[in-house]
Amino acid sequence: MFKTLPGFRDFYPEDCAVRNYLFRVWRRAALSFNFKECDGPILESLELFKEKSGDEIVGQLFAFTDRGGREVALRPEMTPSLARMVAARAQAMKRPIKWFCIGENFRYERRQRGRLRSFYQFNADIFAEPGPGADAEVIAALIHSLRMMGLSTDDFVVRISDRDLWILYLRSLGLGEKAILALLNLIDKRERLSRDVVLERLRPFFHGSAEDFLLNVETLTRTRNMDDLSAFVQAHLTGGELSDAVKRRLSSWVELLDRLERMGLGNWICIDMGVVRGLAYYTGFVFEAFDRRGEHRAIAGGGRYNHLVKKLGGPDMPAVGFAMGDVVIGQILSEKGLLPCRPQKPDLFIIMGKGKPAATALGLLHDLRRAGFSVEYPLRPVAFGKQFKAAHQSGAGLAVILGEDEVEKGVAKIKHLRSGKEEETPLKDLVAKLSDHCR
Amino acid sequence: MFKTLPGFRDFYPEDCAVRNYLFRVWRRAALSFNFKECDGPILESLELFKEKSGDEIVGQLFAFTDRGGREVALRPEMTPSLARMVAARAQAMKRPIKWFCIGENFRYERRQRGRLRSFYQFNADIFAEPGPGADAEVIAALIHSLRMMGLSTDDFVVRISDRDLWILYLRSLGLGEKAILALLNLIDKRERLSRDVVLERLRPFFHGSAEDFLLNVETLTRTRNMDDLSAFVQAHLTGGELSDAVKRRLSSWVELLDRLERMGLGNWICIDMGVVRGLAYYTGFVFEAFDRRGEHRAIAGGGRYNHLVKKLGGPDMPAVGFAMGDVVIGQILSEKGLLPCRPQKPDLFIIMGKGKPAATALGLLHDLRRAGFSVEYPLRPVAFGKQFKAAHQSGAGLAVILGEDEVEKGVAKIKHLRSGKEEETPLKDLVAKLSDHCR
Repeated sequence: MFKTLPGFRDFYPEDCAVRNYLFRVWRRAALSFNFKECDGPILESLELFKEKSGDEIVGQLFAFTDRGGREVALRPEMTPSLARMVAARAQAMKRPIKWFCIGENFRYERRQRGRLRSFYQFNADIFAEPGPGADAEVIAALIHSLRMMGLSTDDFVVRISDRDLWILYLRSLGLGEKAILALLNLIDKRERLSRDVVLERLRPFFHGSAEDFLLNVETLTRTRNMDDLSAFVQAHLTGGELSDAVKRRLSSWVELLDRLERMGLGNWICIDMGVVRGLAYYTGFVFEAFDRRGEHRAIAGGGRYNHLVKKLGGPDMPAVGFAMGDVVIGQILSEKGLLPCRPQKPDLFIIMGKGKPAATALGLLHDLRRAGFSVEYPLRPVAFGKQFKAAHQSGAGLAVILGEDEVEKGVAKIKHLRSGKEEETPLKDLVAKLSDHCR
Repeated sequence: MFKTLPGFRDFYPEDCAVRNYLFRVWRRAALSFNFKECDGPILESLELFKEKSGDEIVGQLFAFTDRGGREVALRPEMTPSLARMVAARAQAMKRPIKWFCIGENFRYERRQRGRLRSFYQFNADIFAEPGPGADAEVIAALIHSLRMMGLSTDDFVVRISDRDLWILYLRSLGLGEKAILALLNLIDKRERLSRDVVLERLRPFFHGSAEDFLLNVETLTRTRNMDDLSAFVQAHLTGGELSDAVKRRLSSWVELLDRLERMGLGNWICIDMGVVRGLAYYTGFVFEAFDRRGEHRAIAGGGRYNHLVKKLGGPDMPAVGFAMGDVVIGQILSEKGLLPCRPQKPDLFIIMGKGKPAATALGLLHDLRRAGFSVEYPLRPVAFGKQFKAAHQSGAGLAVILGEDEVEKGVAKIKHLRSGKEEETPLKDLVAKLSDHCR
């Protein structure tokens, strides 16, 4: 017996219905924000992801050499493809560019809860708008889509952080770019390590003052409001050379929070400098959505990536966006009973006698489908009793019955399968009559 | 600059709109026939496709070894995955099983018109119904979906053939299984070869009577109605041993054509024994949809594959289905001007003054989106004139204007962007008012 590869999924009709529900909500949320849908290829040059996505993801690529000798990889995420596409047509497009996409991504991860090797992602991105208005818009879209699934402020929160501010802080301590990247990675993984291990890893950078630095990191990551964040920045980041950049970050923070507050989204967000994001290309604000109880991995994550379009050969174009996978949100909605479980059902089931009635029924069948009804019927001659059973099992609300008597009289019997009520209608009026019942 | 791999596509918003239009029509057509949507993984064990899909397709696989040492391949078609999924749960499912799916497939083909290395396919399949009622149902679904795209009997035809009848005929000439497969392949490719080459390749099987055989093949493939088909069969297939099987095929033909005729689809189909289908797993009826002018490759193709589920470890379960790619039908619809070219547009554009109006506008914005409107607005403070220009460019039908005067009066101005007409509405009535205009 052939098996599905580990980490890949079969979507039987009941699974596909859940997947399509997520797709529909994502699409409706994005459209209400006037993001335009786009998509890129599932297979790309390996080079596109190397150094663009960060070492962790590159180590998980499904990469191979194709029959033409090209080094290629299944996309592990959408952002590099989107940035490549924007870079290629940047000059011709109206700005700001607001794009969303819903697509499959592939990462060869070890198997663990909330992670699969193939998963779908909803991405929403804004290009060419540097101000916090764009950050607020994508965060609002993220919150909007989760609310459309029935989640409330009790269920999730978006934690917002600032990679720029981290970098400014670490630079003010005299650290170089390489050390800064290593430290951001460590801060990202901090909660999965013991305090002693973290200190051990900090020592090469800080020697005797590693403990002091860690205390400061802990203070900063515990900060939950603008006053405390400003106070920390004023206490630790007052070097003259940096202060303009720092002031700009703080005023961006004020504008971002103000906009989200004005949109009525204040209860869905919090400041959390503990969010750093693993991907190498992030700059500026970064954020992650989590379930409030902290029982799941991040529901979604995103942030600014102002340099990526240029790195991929395009103009210097700021960008911000987020991605939400289908796996974690699927688990959360399932636990809360928020996934739809209505199986797809036909509107009508046609029950037919053999011979002339069957011939009439086949003509009718096609007319009804052309008129937009979902219609089921027996694919071979079957006794009436079995047909009624099949009609009930199909989940159809109505049966249209064509026996010899009906065909002779030029009528059809409509049976309401839930109430058992029956009525007769001339064949010529059938479509109109059924429309009354179904619409 | 990074490039898209050859044979792969970027879907910019205008391309994505076309793709999604096809997906929507396919989905609606399938649902009106009560097919249930499902999907399989894009990556499968290489073994699943080897010998199942036929040598031609296996030679075009994107195959590689994954990080866990598994031989894997991007799916070149959906049928093996669907048959695998049915085989795995065959006992638990209500029969007949009617499934459809819309998914991406991958073949490393040389570049030519109508062929890409990544393409989407619409598949519709019926499992567990051996009779021609199932064949008629999938052919009807194929025709229905093309009609929903605006194509008429002038535009396309479904050519129906019979691999079983071919096999019975070749067997009656004393040929073995291997020779039969080789000859079917040759008959499939016949029109792309010169008559001399075909004769040359027939000679090893027929020696002196190759010419006679070819004449018979030509007679059979020119047959366009049931009388001529019966006449050919009676003239060439009257061996005692075969006659029961042959009679069953002829009565299946009569039933299939009768059902399609009753459904009002007689003008969309024809008998054409020249259709053989390249895939190794086909049995019984096979069919292909072509544009009437013969300018394109097949729009869609399908047929019976009664042995595949069992070969994949399931029960002995008959099956029939078809697949339609997005590339050829996309070209045809484009040439006929039948592709939608309405870009996606927001319902509303909010134009706002700085300061208090902007604050009010952001709250309103979110309310309007929650109410289901697609709403656009400037992501940063912009002069009124520029905002009006952006509103027009966005394609929105209505602008909602919030200046200082309006906010002071507790109203918003609604501007109909096509007519220029303006009206004032109290903010509390705005959602209701806009609903009247937009719905």
